[in-house]
Amino acid sequence: MSSNEILFLIGTGVFAITGVLAAARQNMDVMSFIIIGMVTAIGGGTLRDLILGVRTFWLEDTAYLYVASAAAIATFFFERVFRATYNALLYLDALATAVFTVVATERTLHLGFAPGIAVLMGVITGIGGGILRDLLTGQPTILMRRGLYMTPILIGGAVYVALRRTGSFAPLQVSLLAIAVITLIRFGAIHWDWAFPDWLTYRPRKSVSDAHRR
Amino acid sequence: MSSNEILFLIGTGVFAITGVLAAARQNMDVMSFIIIGMVTAIGGGTLRDLILGVRTFWLEDTAYLYVASAAAIATFFFERVFRATYNALLYLDALATAVFTVVATERTLHLGFAPGIAVLMGVITGIGGGILRDLLTGQPTILMRRGLYMTPILIGGAVYVALRRTGSFAPLQVSLLAIAVITLIRFGAIHWDWAFPDWLTYRPRKSVSDAHRR
Amino acid sequence: MSSNEILFLIGTGVFAITGVLAAARQNMDVMSFIIIGMVTAIGGGTLRDLILGVRTFWLEDTAYLYVASAAAIATFFFERVFRATYNALLYLDALATAVFTVVATERTLHLGFAPGIAVLMGVITGIGGGILRDLLTGQPTILMRRGLYMTPILIGGAVYVALRRTGSFAPLQVSLLAIAVITLIRFGAIHWDWAFPDWLTYRPRKSVSDAHRR
Repeated sequence: MSSNEILFLIGTGVFAITGVLAAARQNMDVMSFIIIGMVTAIGGGTLRDLILGVRTFWLEDTAYLYVASAAAIATFFFERVFRATYNALLYLDALATAVFTVVATERTLHLGFAPGIAVLMGVITGIGGGILRDLLTGQPTILMRRGLYMTPILIGGAVYVALRRTGSFAPLQVSLLAIAVITLIRFGAIHWDWAFPDWLTYRPRKSVSDAHRR
Repeated sequence: MSSNEILFLIGTGVFAITGVLAAARQNMDVMSFIIIGMVTAIGGGTLRDLILGVRTFWLEDTAYLYVASAAAIATFFFERVFRATYNALLYLDALATAVFTVVATERTLHLGFAPGIAVLMGVITGIGGGILRDLLTGQPTILMRRGLYMTPILIGGAVYVALRRTGSFAPLQVSLLAIAVITLIRFGAIHWDWAFPDWLTYRPRKSVSDAHRR
Repeated sequence: MSSNEILFLIGTGVFAITGVLAAARQNMDVMSFIIIGMVTAIGGGTLRDLILGVRTFWLEDTAYLYVASAAAIATFFFERVFRATYNALLYLDALATAVFTVVATERTLHLGFAPGIAVLMGVITGIGGGILRDLLTGQPTILMRRGLYMTPILIGGAVYVALRRTGSFAPLQVSLLAIAVITLIRFGAIHWDWAFPDWLTYRPRKSVSDAHRR
């Protein structure tokens, strides 16, 4: 097991923990926790692989499933401990999200897809799991909330593909820079509640009949 | 870029505009608009391609992504203008839906699948994006509403595969006829609120415990 | 058509019937019933095939689509009859779920995937359709409810892969045993409302801000 993979598995565990802490509701049993942990942790990457038409990443490496399940079970039994460190976990989650999305962007480029596709795959990797979890647990998705979730990933992805295209930097340098960009914006969003300004946020002007929505 | 592709891109823009107009809610930021526009415009075709096991159509042609994004951004900033033409846009949306679903049916047949699969792929192409948008934005899906959304596509698809099977018509004639059938029924559904009659609409007879639903 | 396939088609019809009986709501038209019947009956297997990267099972065998549609239409028109036998149908549904999930586990192993993947594919096959139906019809998913849905499949799948690994039993014997295990636990869950005990069920200790959920 490479050191990279160990880092990925740690990130997977963090996603599962923050995922079930956010989703936990009365009457959920430990089995629901396991499913929610797995969906949050590996859902985004699964969506990405399906759309790209490549092998789902965890089929060959079941460690992702077991780490996500174990993290969810641990969170069920030691919720108090994890809640106490929830804020620290959110920052760790932001860092892990940055790493996973930049790796996804890099791999998508490497597979020969266009830069725009690579950036989008980073976004899907980063937010897909959380969205699937919200759907499965009946919560409003991030599309309905202010707060910066997709935007940092989009900016980091754009920085990544732009700098790679110049050819003046080593791939590792570019990756680290993009990870830093995403992490710092997410940190600001968590700490200072950064969001889009009002003029970039929708305010209904008048109601419209929904009768004919397709 | 062929004239066909230009038409497809115009349709994609229309889907994104009507999609975000229907989904726009307080507190959504411009980034949510972009995601909603993309999901509505290309979600159905993406689902279809995943199920058929063929390459996701926009991976090779990122213009679909950019047109949907640009249309969503334009709708964010010029909502008043688009709302004023909402009714006209709905008819354009109906026409574009007809074109995309008939093309999907045609291509599925061409790939060697059974006529029933081809008709179903038309339906999924036509309604998939709207359903995904409703799920992501917490709205009831079309399955919960009266109104003709799936049925016109089903009828048009059936007309298409039946006439193609006779072999007595040129493919283009059959396509145009099927597009006309779908468009006209959708126009009627928009203009006169056509829906299934009461005897084809469910009315609960007695309550049943949900306790054991799988 | 083999006797196996006839059994599968009967199970598919049962899934569609119990699916629409559970989901039927005011204002749904017969077309919504058809979609709900199909999604419930073939949604889980479709998800499984997409994730495994194998051909969607009903593309080659459209009988599944027609049986699910016909069962949904019959349920629409003869709801009273089906409601009267709802309890018997639930047991039949449990038995059919057991068969489909064990077959899914067996085939996944046969494709060369790890035992953990095979068990998970059984679970996805068994619960995926019901979850998709609940999402499409705005109902809380099984993740939000007590009751044993995933657990019997997980246990049966674990029994299956463990016994196959010993090599001391004929495949058919192992399949039948695993089917019996799943069926009996589900029967208990239906008849006696079996669920996880309280200490394995979540009870919120304190509220936590959702503000920073990813």
